[in-house]
Amino acid sequence: MQLHQASWPEIEAYLERSKGIVIPIGSTEQHGPNGLLGTDAICPEVIAKHAGDEAGFLVGPTFNVGCAQHHLGFPGTITLRPTTMIAALNDWIESLVRCGFQRIYFLNGHGGNIATIDAAFAESYANWSLDGEACPYRLKQANWFTLPGMMELCRSIFPEGEGSHATASEVSVTYYAYPDAAKDVAMEPKIAPSGGFADAADYRARFPDGRIGSDPSQATAEKGERIVKAAAAKLIEDVEVFFAR
Amino acid sequence: MQLHQASWPEIEAYLERSKGIVIPIGSTEQHGPNGLLGTDAICPEVIAKHAGDEAGFLVGPTFNVGCAQHHLGFPGTITLRPTTMIAALNDWIESLVRCGFQRIYFLNGHGGNIATIDAAFAESYANWSLDGEACPYRLKQANWFTLPGMMELCRSIFPEGEGSHATASEVSVTYYAYPDAAKDVAMEPKIAPSGGFADAADYRARFPDGRIGSDPSQATAEKGERIVKAAAAKLIEDVEVFFAR
Amino acid sequence: MQLHQASWPEIEAYLERSKGIVIPIGSTEQHGPNGLLGTDAICPEVIAKHAGDEAGFLVGPTFNVGCAQHHLGFPGTITLRPTTMIAALNDWIESLVRCGFQRIYFLNGHGGNIATIDAAFAESYANWSLDGEACPYRLKQANWFTLPGMMELCRSIFPEGEGSHATASEVSVTYYAYPDAAKDVAMEPKIAPSGGFADAADYRARFPDGRIGSDPSQATAEKGERIVKAAAAKLIEDVEVFFAR
Amino acid sequence: MQLHQASWPEIEAYLERSKGIVIPIGSTEQHGPNGLLGTDAICPEVIAKHAGDEAGFLVGPTFNVGCAQHHLGFPGTITLRPTTMIAALNDWIESLVRCGFQRIYFLNGHGGNIATIDAAFAESYANWSLDGEACPYRLKQANWFTLPGMMELCRSIFPEGEGSHATASEVSVTYYAYPDAAKDVAMEPKIAPSGGFADAADYRARFPDGRIGSDPSQATAEKGERIVKAAAAKLIEDVEVFFAR
Amino acid sequence: MQLHQASWPEIEAYLERSKGIVIPIGSTEQHGPNGLLGTDAICPEVIAKHAGDEAGFLVGPTFNVGCAQHHLGFPGTITLRPTTMIAALNDWIESLVRCGFQRIYFLNGHGGNIATIDAAFAESYANWSLDGEACPYRLKQANWFTLPGMMELCRSIFPEGEGSHATASEVSVTYYAYPDAAKDVAMEPKIAPSGGFADAADYRARFPDGRIGSDPSQATAEKGERIVKAAAAKLIEDVEVFFAR
Amino acid sequence: MQLHQASWPEIEAYLERSKGIVIPIGSTEQHGPNGLLGTDAICPEVIAKHAGDEAGFLVGPTFNVGCAQHHLGFPGTITLRPTTMIAALNDWIESLVRCGFQRIYFLNGHGGNIATIDAAFAESYANWSLDGEACPYRLKQANWFTLPGMMELCRSIFPEGEGSHATASEVSVTYYAYPDAAKDVAMEPKIAPSGGFADAADYRARFPDGRIGSDPSQATAEKGERIVKAAAAKLIEDVEVFFAR
Ligand code: NI
Ligand code: NI
Ligand code: NI
Ligand code: NI
Ligand code: NI
Ligand code: NI
Repeated sequence: MQLHQASWPEIEAYLERSKGIVIPIGSTEQHGPNGLLGTDAICPEVIAKHAGDEAGFLVGPTFNVGCAQHHLGFPGTITLRPTTMIAALNDWIESLVRCGFQRIYFLNGHGGNIATIDAAFAESYANWSLDGEACPYRLKQANWFTLPGMMELCRSIFPEGEGSHATASEVSVTYYAYPDAAKDVAMEPKIAPSGGFADAADYRARFPDGRIGSDPSQATAEKGERIVKAAAAKLIEDVEVFFAR
Repeated sequence: MQLHQASWPEIEAYLERSKGIVIPIGSTEQHGPNGLLGTDAICPEVIAKHAGDEAGFLVGPTFNVGCAQHHLGFPGTITLRPTTMIAALNDWIESLVRCGFQRIYFLNGHGGNIATIDAAFAESYANWSLDGEACPYRLKQANWFTLPGMMELCRSIFPEGEGSHATASEVSVTYYAYPDAAKDVAMEPKIAPSGGFADAADYRARFPDGRIGSDPSQATAEKGERIVKAAAAKLIEDVEVFFAR
Repeated sequence: MQLHQASWPEIEAYLERSKGIVIPIGSTEQHGPNGLLGTDAICPEVIAKHAGDEAGFLVGPTFNVGCAQHHLGFPGTITLRPTTMIAALNDWIESLVRCGFQRIYFLNGHGGNIATIDAAFAESYANWSLDGEACPYRLKQANWFTLPGMMELCRSIFPEGEGSHATASEVSVTYYAYPDAAKDVAMEPKIAPSGGFADAADYRARFPDGRIGSDPSQATAEKGERIVKAAAAKLIEDVEVFFAR
Repeated sequence: MQLHQASWPEIEAYLERSKGIVIPIGSTEQHGPNGLLGTDAICPEVIAKHAGDEAGFLVGPTFNVGCAQHHLGFPGTITLRPTTMIAALNDWIESLVRCGFQRIYFLNGHGGNIATIDAAFAESYANWSLDGEACPYRLKQANWFTLPGMMELCRSIFPEGEGSHATASEVSVTYYAYPDAAKDVAMEPKIAPSGGFADAADYRARFPDGRIGSDPSQATAEKGERIVKAAAAKLIEDVEVFFAR
Repeated sequence: MQLHQASWPEIEAYLERSKGIVIPIGSTEQHGPNGLLGTDAICPEVIAKHAGDEAGFLVGPTFNVGCAQHHLGFPGTITLRPTTMIAALNDWIESLVRCGFQRIYFLNGHGGNIATIDAAFAESYANWSLDGEACPYRLKQANWFTLPGMMELCRSIFPEGEGSHATASEVSVTYYAYPDAAKDVAMEPKIAPSGGFADAADYRARFPDGRIGSDPSQATAEKGERIVKAAAAKLIEDVEVFFAR
Repeated sequence: MQLHQASWPEIEAYLERSKGIVIPIGSTEQHGPNGLLGTDAICPEVIAKHAGDEAGFLVGPTFNVGCAQHHLGFPGTITLRPTTMIAALNDWIESLVRCGFQRIYFLNGHGGNIATIDAAFAESYANWSLDGEACPYRLKQANWFTLPGMMELCRSIFPEGEGSHATASEVSVTYYAYPDAAKDVAMEPKIAPSGGFADAADYRARFPDGRIGSDPSQATAEKGERIVKAAAAKLIEDVEVFFAR
């Protein structure tokens, strides 16, 4: 069940049986020569939809632009400042709590969001902690790619060149979601360099085509499907534990 | 061409021939007994995609949660505070300008966003005006439902009960976009009451099922298709003028 | 009755009979070769005073600097950023509500303020809507120049060159308010160009002497008086409806 | 010369001979049983106008709502939060500097504003200091009632009951400015209690009618005139030194 | 008793007998050729510790970076923007109040902090005043160097060259606190110039080695000890009055 | 070398040979029945001082209050909201960069700070990335307790009951720093429960005396000394690599 395709009476009925919701959260940022700019939003969106359809939980709208300042050296990237993202997440959380939700699970697709989502949660809880009142809701984030067993699965599918940005796996997932958007691009070098980075200029200097440690030319829709299904299964388990807490 | 399905080299190539982009912007809010919570985001998204595919301009990611405080009396609604939305829009604008875009056209699907988008534009321009430097980019917003001829068209398709919120037209557009999400719900009264509102409690008291002045039980995917095509044609004209300015 | 000339016991007594107040709100910005920088604040101030004196309602202090970034190419202009204005308006509103007011009517003199005032209202209501409590007060804005019949009146007094910025009407109103400040300046061209604008540099390039579409050399104190009296009468009607709601 | 009654070409001409401006800054807050709510804004406004007319310097619009949280126990009081006031002052300063002003002198009428104005100045300078660039403008604040000799003068006119809030002097100045607004109210006790305060509830408990240490029933327009003229003379001296620095 | 060396059960026990706490607050900024960058934090810290140990009141952690934009022309200086400091102070205050404290006394070591601390207090009280509720706590700030009799004592110890920044007294206090950090530097000129300043560039131009009006080469740990003991005695008196209020 | 005990000419000289600085950063929060409220600030402070003294690098003032909302159920805890902490960190960073530093290494003592420090770094870099300029400085954070080999060392010293909050190791480090502050308290149960938490009420319910998984009654100053020396050695290695980058 997807919130954006539901009516409010349908949500009202859902809230009778569950107070939980899953929000896909990602980024709009370069993903190398053959990766989609929307990769990090598309992956959690498609995985959450799969899982929600199967397990019957509600999936909210996708938070599709996140913290991507380091990718701004590549056109098409859009970023929020971390403080803007904290404000936006808190408005989403307040709204959902106002509607009756008490368990909000953010399924994240972008490593660069993790810290800011955590800070946003602390900002949210701090209002209750400073007021001396018990907070009636719980917040959780998890990356689809670090759900139990997922890293192992991805590395087994792509023994070489899975990488850490514009990974073979995430590109596969997007090709599964949008087969027509698959792009056939030769990679040079085959496997991109690895390492850390600071701002956008530093990133572009270190990773000239945007990839980190990956060879996403291996990506296929078929492999993406396999990954989506495995991740959806793991997500269902994790969500059920969280909603029941 | 849709940014979230493009790679950065494709955007780089696009920027060689155009500095313009269209951003669908909407809201996630109740749309009456048979309308989708995502209606105001879905409508500009589908119209912009249609137009962009035909005319070859770039469509960015959808800004899918806007100013909807007055709908919070109905579950499923999510709002940004206006100041949060101004901050977020300015981060999007700064990012797109940094990438090389100079004409940013927001195709809006929600009346409650108009003022805040305008304020966000003034906030953006103010930085340049206070610095005493000429701003190198231009911003524009337009509602899909007030593009030239659209109001007339919608009222000709729905001579009675088009209304002003959860309109027969916008629900039709979403049914065209997501036929499986169409909902068959009887409306009582047939045509909802009209009028103004203040906060969420006031809104719910005046408009108990969320509609204003509309009878969206008339909505069909076929009518939605007609509206989308007409709006896309008008959008293309408007975008071309704006990009050429 | 004007708040700034009243004592607190007088306001306490007023609140016994009415919970309503009118706040003139304008801008400090260039108004062409013969217009006063304070025009947009002076006009609602003098109209509100007239009306308040006649009808016995309370007029608060004038919010005299607004959103005028586009006029910063002309010396003497002062602007608030929209987000600053939203913060300031919310502090005014909270204060007035704290004092017991429940109907706050902003009589606006500046087109550039409209969006930001609307956004400020949504910001104010959002606090209640997100808390799930009914907001006990109501906010309204209206431009003096769009009160019922005013546009027609102004265009009948100035059939040519009324314009849309530094209008013949608004300059007349200020000459009525401050006869000694009337300035005799020849206009070249007689009627200024019309059109849209973005930032301050863009504005100054399009409208070199600051006027848009107007010939304010026609302005006189006598015509101003006529306009003030007509606007005050319309304001009284509108305020009474709003206070009674 | 008053900015709000001048045209932009007049300001342009003024800037040829001076880069200085005086901004009256006050508050809208209770001033006891017979004092005007606008007292703290009216006093610097009338003194600055007097001085500006005589000495030929420019007086800007009045910043008429300041930091008055402690007076909110009395109806008619309006406050800005200190952080809002800092933001607003910085927008005013940026605008004036953008226009060409380099010496901005705030003539203050309210003790409760002093700290926040100082903090706003530090906020403004900090931008330059952190950038490592020399700030091209200078900011100054002075209270009209602490200009050289003014305290002595006021206490010589009112040997008893001058006080520190709703003072006999400031009420006199407003009666001189608005003779029709003079109010004849018996004071009980004749001289109000003195002391410190924290928030609005604390203030109202300590000072039940709003006065601190004063007997403003002694106020007359004639005494007000004497005070205005003396303060204007001192202001001229101070402003000339500041503008020449 | 120092909070940072206490356990939470010890604080819980302390709160049984007192609701008061003293917070040393200073700055990290240049203090001339032989003064420590931490001077303004160290002085209130050591005085508060002395006093707290003797009188048994609780001393909180030191707020060690304050408003020092004007010193940024000298390396080692760190500043907060005033609005940042207001936010931080309000978080400290909210936390302490949440823990049960009702009297928070800031012992300040830096003149440049005074205005911003005052503004922060007004920001804190404003929340209660605007809500119409009585604030249950009280806030106070005092500079160690203006406690009763301290200015006289310091000027009697250093009849010449006490000065107003990098004073002989404050440098003495830090040498008493950290004898090994005492620095033997010749001053040229012996007594530094005096006067005002604006931003960092202005400050450095007027006061090339950072001192204002002082000759801190007279500083000794012995004199520092005398000052600390005198200030601690005065602090105890002031704190006891404040806690008892 | 410690910045707060240095003079500005000493920092100027230091900058001739190094552009790097280490900032200890912690929290003021409950640390169980025998742990100091300042533990998380004291630990990085003492380790950084040790290392800086040995290796000759500069140690800045300690950022002593961090993100501790979850500990507010225990008196003595002070928190910043994450957004406040981001603002404060950015002011510190801007100041240090303005002074000439180009490598800023935050040695952290509190797990709850990690996300917010990361977000603050992204906020800082974003300004450069959005401007399209290369950021001239680099930021790094590291926890003293996760420096290479430290976790192993701590668990070898305390094979049972090291825990994850109010750990035996961190309490030992503070006892080494402040032997007089060592507290002899029996723990019940011997080893505290483990698990996650949300807000302050949730934390206190799960961990009634504040500890998580630890038995800090094993803490001794001697063990603390061993830990400090080991951590200092590892810190020197890590700092040298970072400064040289
Ligand atoms: Ni990715
Ligand atoms: Ni709609
Ligand atoms: Ni106007
Ligand atoms: Ni006053
Ligand atoms: Ni000092
Ligand atoms: Ni700890």
